[in-house]
Amino acid sequence: MCQLFALDSAMPTSVCFPLSGFVARGGATADHVDGWGVAFHDDEGGCRRFVDAGRASDSALARHLCRHPIPARHIVAHVRRATQGAVAAVNCHPFRREWRGRSWTFCHNGDLKNFHPALDAAFAPVGATDSERAFCWLMQQLQHRFASEPAPTWQALAPVVAELAGEIARHGVFNFLLCDGRAICAHASTRLHWLQRRAPFGRVRLVDRDAEIDLALTHAGSDRAVLMATEPLTLGEAWVAFERGEMRVFSGGQSIWHGCTQNVPATAAAEATETAVIVEAAAA
Amino acid sequence: MCQLFALDSAMPTSVCFPLSGFVARGGATADHVDGWGVAFHDDEGGCRRFVDAGRASDSALARHLCRHPIPARHIVAHVRRATQGAVAAVNCHPFRREWRGRSWTFCHNGDLKNFHPALDAAFAPVGATDSERAFCWLMQQLQHRFASEPAPTWQALAPVVAELAGEIARHGVFNFLLCDGRAICAHASTRLHWLQRRAPFGRVRLVDRDAEIDLALTHAGSDRAVLMATEPLTLGEAWVAFERGEMRVFSGGQSIWHGCTQNVPATAAAEATETAVIVEAAAA
Repeated sequence: MCQLFALDSAMPTSVCFPLSGFVARGGATADHVDGWGVAFHDDEGGCRRFVDAGRASDSALARHLCRHPIPARHIVAHVRRATQGAVAAVNCHPFRREWRGRSWTFCHNGDLKNFHPALDAAFAPVGATDSERAFCWLMQQLQHRFASEPAPTWQALAPVVAELAGEIARHGVFNFLLCDGRAICAHASTRLHWLQRRAPFGRVRLVDRDAEIDLALTHAGSDRAVLMATEPLTLGEAWVAFERGEMRVFSGGQSIWHGCTQNVPATAAAEATETAVIVEAAAA
Repeated sequence: MCQLFALDSAMPTSVCFPLSGFVARGGATADHVDGWGVAFHDDEGGCRRFVDAGRASDSALARHLCRHPIPARHIVAHVRRATQGAVAAVNCHPFRREWRGRSWTFCHNGDLKNFHPALDAAFAPVGATDSERAFCWLMQQLQHRFASEPAPTWQALAPVVAELAGEIARHGVFNFLLCDGRAICAHASTRLHWLQRRAPFGRVRLVDRDAEIDLALTHAGSDRAVLMATEPLTLGEAWVAFERGEMRVFSGGQSIWHGCTQNVPATAAAEATETAVIVEAAAA
């Protein structure tokens, strides 16, 4: 299994403080020691992705990233404990593909059994993880479903992603983050938390390191951000657990879409179970 | 314009020494100040790509990479002086796409005029450079040409790439590096140098920094590598200039394919010029 972390912010922001807590889970405070990665999506469409097959907690590159801010509105990160695929950079999340003039990144926490869909040349996995296969299939299905729509919005994409996520989740645990530089889509089949950070800002403390920050000193009153993590990263903030099967899309520091993929753990019987998608308009 | 640098090696090797000279061209010894990037292709298919829109010569990340080796057999790098497209990470080379289960990276030095081919969703550019458009079109054409061949070798790919490069070079200067983790394909329409480094190894000095190294201390007798650069990076080694229109494919530290795309500078008349591809078997 692995752990996920993401930030969606109304304004470009540094992620150094929570990232320094998250990378500790790659060997110091938890045993996700088989690689790590983080992707920063900027406002011009750029995506700077860093991955390494070593322990995040010992990584000189991770230390560098925790000390040299890369301000971004959308950041997704991952620490890995390998279940499928060797310990190698090629199997580190976030995975990345380009589609429709955007860079898409994807991180997964879970384990998918017997998931070997047919994939086109453009969406063939490079590594050997269930996670990259799921990402490639998701992107390929989006390409098929939106073949005639040149620029689908997240209001159009979200229910399709939820339906596809429900199909994949029949094969096992499928907690994931999907980002295209405009929004972050987060789905929990078992475990994921989120938090909206907005004024009034106060002091927060990291769970994984003896470090505290006063957000009032670094944030303007209008700042607004959403943090996502497998397990809460800070004390002093109101993290909310996702329901099982819950999917949300975050943009501009708020939830802009909310729905549910009802699924059950993968069993032989589960193959025959109907996957229902319940779409709710978000009170954004 | 920009500058290119690459390494193809028989054994995974560190590129810290020549890279430290190359990044000086991003602001210190030359004025390619509009961003930089480097991609390391490992033996498992992994590709670690680092880009930044700032000056390479002042970059904390570039300094980090020059001090923390990432051994690889194939490395491509670029320092940018913008001609088309804003100064932004999204427009920094190497560009990257996945195709046929491999990560492909591409760096360009030159300037293509009136090159706006039709591109599929999977190969739509994210940024606004002529270079990324050329790369996307190249990959899309390879996808079309090799639709029925699941795993084309470089002996099959090279003449097709040479033909496509000749077509693109009708639009202007098209010096490029293309890497898929198995080989590096290098083409010069105006200016590019290469060097085969093999035993006996001696002392070499950087052109761009006051630094010298004795390769005999860091290389085994069987080591063999090819370095490519727009302008020679070292003194004390026999760099060879590419002919105009020359294309070579390097793998395992040697030239494995050699051909020529005869082209002329872009003019209205050039549109009608035939592009001939002369393929020569390499004496590998």
